[in-house]
Amino acid sequence: MLTPGATIGILGGGQLARMLAMAGARLGLKSHIFSPGANEPAFDVCAARTVARYEDEAALAAFAEAVDVVTYEFENVPARTAEFLAARKPVRPNPRVLALTQDRLVEKRFVQGLGIDTAGFADVADAGALARGVAKLGRPSILKTRRLGYDGKGQILLQGGADLAVTFRALGGAPCILESFVHFSKEISVVAARGVDGEFRAYDVCENVHEHHILATTTTPANIRPETAARAALIARAIAEAADYVGVLAVEMFVLDHAVGPIWERLVVNEIAPRVHNSGHWTLDGATTSQFEQHMRAVAGWPLGSTRRHGRAVMSNLIGDDANGWRELLGEEGACLHLYGKSEVRPGRKMGHVTRVTPEEP
Amino acid sequence: MLTPGATIGILGGGQLARMLAMAGARLGLKSHIFSPGANEPAFDVCAARTVARYEDEAALAAFAEAVDVVTYEFENVPARTAEFLAARKPVRPNPRVLALTQDRLVEKRFVQGLGIDTAGFADVADAGALARGVAKLGRPSILKTRRLGYDGKGQILLQGGADLAVTFRALGGAPCILESFVHFSKEISVVAARGVDGEFRAYDVCENVHEHHILATTTTPANIRPETAARAALIARAIAEAADYVGVLAVEMFVLDHAVGPIWERLVVNEIAPRVHNSGHWTLDGATTSQFEQHMRAVAGWPLGSTRRHGRAVMSNLIGDDANGWRELLGEEGACLHLYGKSEVRPGRKMGHVTRVTPEEP
Repeated sequence: MLTPGATIGILGGGQLARMLAMAGARLGLKSHIFSPGANEPAFDVCAARTVARYEDEAALAAFAEAVDVVTYEFENVPARTAEFLAARKPVRPNPRVLALTQDRLVEKRFVQGLGIDTAGFADVADAGALARGVAKLGRPSILKTRRLGYDGKGQILLQGGADLAVTFRALGGAPCILESFVHFSKEISVVAARGVDGEFRAYDVCENVHEHHILATTTTPANIRPETAARAALIARAIAEAADYVGVLAVEMFVLDHAVGPIWERLVVNEIAPRVHNSGHWTLDGATTSQFEQHMRAVAGWPLGSTRRHGRAVMSNLIGDDANGWRELLGEEGACLHLYGKSEVRPGRKMGHVTRVTPEEP
Repeated sequence: MLTPGATIGILGGGQLARMLAMAGARLGLKSHIFSPGANEPAFDVCAARTVARYEDEAALAAFAEAVDVVTYEFENVPARTAEFLAARKPVRPNPRVLALTQDRLVEKRFVQGLGIDTAGFADVADAGALARGVAKLGRPSILKTRRLGYDGKGQILLQGGADLAVTFRALGGAPCILESFVHFSKEISVVAARGVDGEFRAYDVCENVHEHHILATTTTPANIRPETAARAALIARAIAEAADYVGVLAVEMFVLDHAVGPIWERLVVNEIAPRVHNSGHWTLDGATTSQFEQHMRAVAGWPLGSTRRHGRAVMSNLIGDDANGWRELLGEEGACLHLYGKSEVRPGRKMGHVTRVTPEEP
């Protein structure tokens, strides 16, 4: 258990690290940001920074020396970086979680191994395996690289007539996974935390809408049956416990439009994010404890905070030019605006978000 | 009107500057802290810092060059510092406000000039004036230095029998003000903001309890009549408008236990704080917009945010050793803990605060 004044090392310097650092500072924790980028959003709000490549062992060693615990804002931390640091200081969540979530195939097998549904999938090592996968899963289906995809990058929707060899080459010949196309009625996520002592707390289930493969809005609570919400939280808990997880994680799921069985809407796990998550940003304005504070509490070995909501929360991302609407948003009664301090607006770039919290009927 | 990415210069590096800097960062504003102290709480969360004396004109000139607007976390900014900066960049609130609030006698005359009640007072330039003041105001009364007192420092309670010449010398012979002792039933404060365009917004009235002259707890809303609350807000507004104020201010008032007139509890203004205020800390967890964000919005020339409360908020300061109770507070359901990152615990030092927000009956 850390004491106030301790330093949390954070790998990555984007908006998630920025909001983590501020949440830590509320609690008297210092943040030390490690990032290869020289002009990172998190640098404006941290006690210390290291600008170096993730492969720079001298820089990593000095960083480990300077901090009390290490965490990260993104799942693509190189495995060797995580192992190098873990040999020197606690890394939370543990590096095995990275191995699990960096590879879509490994992640799917892990989830299915817990008895939790995923989309159907097939291992696609080459064009021949892709043909066998399509024969098994049918079309439409989605070919994804096993590693390093996000926000729709590194994936191709396979519809009728597409040439499989061409499609496989379009992803660079990298090892892939083919996933069956899920006809869902809703996308939801569970943002939850697990402490060093195994304490588990989930926020109310979030309902997400994506546009162009990027999260557009999150509404909490999700408009789903109470039994479905309870089951979603149980799924997140089972995953967190099986991974011996410490910190905040998000589990994205689909709610299927053809319910099977009399009681529950059917849930299919889509993805695990081993970090604070965009669909949890509403907690900054809509919950007693933000997901960022919750994560810092967990990695510090502290008790988790209350996940109580203040009302119904709708979070909208400000993507690219959306951020130019800041004047109107500042003037909108009750809108909570967050801007990430990014100097350059680029299409598809997450520039900020806005949360609107309205009182709920009791 | 500043644009996101602009830099707010803040004079002072304590916990108020720390919380201002974090609130600015939420909105995409950078903070540049100017402080003579080398190890300040705000340094952990700011984009830039200057460690220099307030009289160092070269440092002040460079600071003015680096920022877009200047504000401050404390009222005892030297007048020459404020004027030097105001000649180069906008200083908000304007430096005349400092002149007004740095001198208790000037402040009292200003408030009375607006037709607002204060305690009775007398100008005490020497021991003879003190004798005349006591003859006029009676005992008990309170002798205070006109300048530089806070948290009960620089004041002496005059009770029966005290030797007036000795008492005057005990305050170093500095120019003083004698104030009649107010028998109050409650201490309240109005935390409010005024924008560059004159927009005015007040949070609900706070009820404060002091211990050993230091704020111990703030409860919002105050347990006073609605008419009294409305009048308190009007008083704060009149003061803000007369001072052409921009930013957050707090007006501390007494509610008298011998009500005069049939309608209102009687209010007496005790002090004006030209800055974010300890009695507004509950807004971080209990209101849509925190007082810190509200101040940053105002000094940036932006519209003010919603002052809506999430519930009934009780803020308790963590003074000195209180901060050692952090483990219990972290484990208390619903308690929102804030620690200011001060490395050394000292008696009477404000180390942090905790806010408990509970839902209200509609």
